[in-house]
Amino acid sequence: MAGFTPSLENLIDKFAALPSIGRKSAQRLAFHILGMDNDSVGAFIEAINNARSSVHRCKICCNFTDNEICDICASKERDRTTVCVVEDPRDVMAFEKTHEYSGLYHVLHGVISPMNDVSPEDICIKELIARLSDGEIKEIIMAANPTVEGEATSMYISKLIKPLGIKVTRLAYGIPVGADLEYADEFTLIRAMEGRKDI
Amino acid sequence: MAGFTPSLENLIDKFAALPSIGRKSAQRLAFHILGMDNDSVGAFIEAINNARSSVHRCKICCNFTDNEICDICASKERDRTTVCVVEDPRDVMAFEKTHEYSGLYHVLHGVISPMNDVSPEDICIKELIARLSDGEIKEIIMAANPTVEGEATSMYISKLIKPLGIKVTRLAYGIPVGADLEYADEFTLIRAMEGRKDI
Repeated sequence: MAGFTPSLENLIDKFAALPSIGRKSAQRLAFHILGMDNDSVGAFIEAINNARSSVHRCKICCNFTDNEICDICASKERDRTTVCVVEDPRDVMAFEKTHEYSGLYHVLHGVISPMNDVSPEDICIKELIARLSDGEIKEIIMAANPTVEGEATSMYISKLIKPLGIKVTRLAYGIPVGADLEYADEFTLIRAMEGRKDI
Repeated sequence: MAGFTPSLENLIDKFAALPSIGRKSAQRLAFHILGMDNDSVGAFIEAINNARSSVHRCKICCNFTDNEICDICASKERDRTTVCVVEDPRDVMAFEKTHEYSGLYHVLHGVISPMNDVSPEDICIKELIARLSDGEIKEIIMAANPTVEGEATSMYISKLIKPLGIKVTRLAYGIPVGADLEYADEFTLIRAMEGRKDI
């Protein structure tokens, strides 16, 4: 069986190595790249190089930014007494989309995971602790994903922070708004029951 | 709401502009690119540039190749009297995977589609006609997709070729092997009924 021509196969392989791109999608993308005009391909490659060279971590919150300090940390409008701690820059975007939270963030860039060889030093915990020294921050909201590793990371961090006299909270567990109870898993239902409120 | 930092947003936009990549996938890909090591990113960009500069159309069959003439056209083992005409290089791969067809191919790179402003001159029909002049080819198998435009293209081409005394056939219509009759559409069932065979 003849395959695609080598340079095309190579490009397909490269696309297929990207996350959540299967073989068929990789083919479609490679064919699309071949069919693009030179300017578009140039702009695509420039975007990759540009992002790689410009994007780095905010000196304060470790979120991705093109500047030394990210827009949120630099903003005068944010509540500087509250910090929401998340795993990933995309989680910051998720909270920002709610238009409700006006505090600051801290991005851990991962969770503690002995199985994947990720120790506390590998994620941005020391940067978080360093932020607490000036006494401005009154509350840390732990918002790691509700996984075993996310919870363990939250516990680890809260044990470090509580002795400093800073309030540590975590997101409420419960049933998602608009969800169908029938499809809720039992752990979520147990947590929702435990956290029930007066109405 | 603060968005991602501009160079990252730009990279996400570029990925989102690729076919079948949604906003969430584009984010995942952009973050993956940021997390890759320099060598891998270099190899990815090189694969794009390399494919763009090396891949072109075979002088004979218009399939993609790195050489002047593709491996199939250059092969001494193929039956040179039969040419299977397909829309797209991926269709060549589909037939090659069957390991049953040993003839040659011709890739049209599209179908005639007045609605999309694709006329017969825009696809590789003249290259197909040029191949017929030396009399070696005895049969043309039309294998455009079974769409209205694919069929119209097959009809157009067969009308050009038949006067040259060359046999023109098309793929059989019918129910796909292993399919559930219950889910077959009515047109397929009609075609399968029309094309029924003695057993």
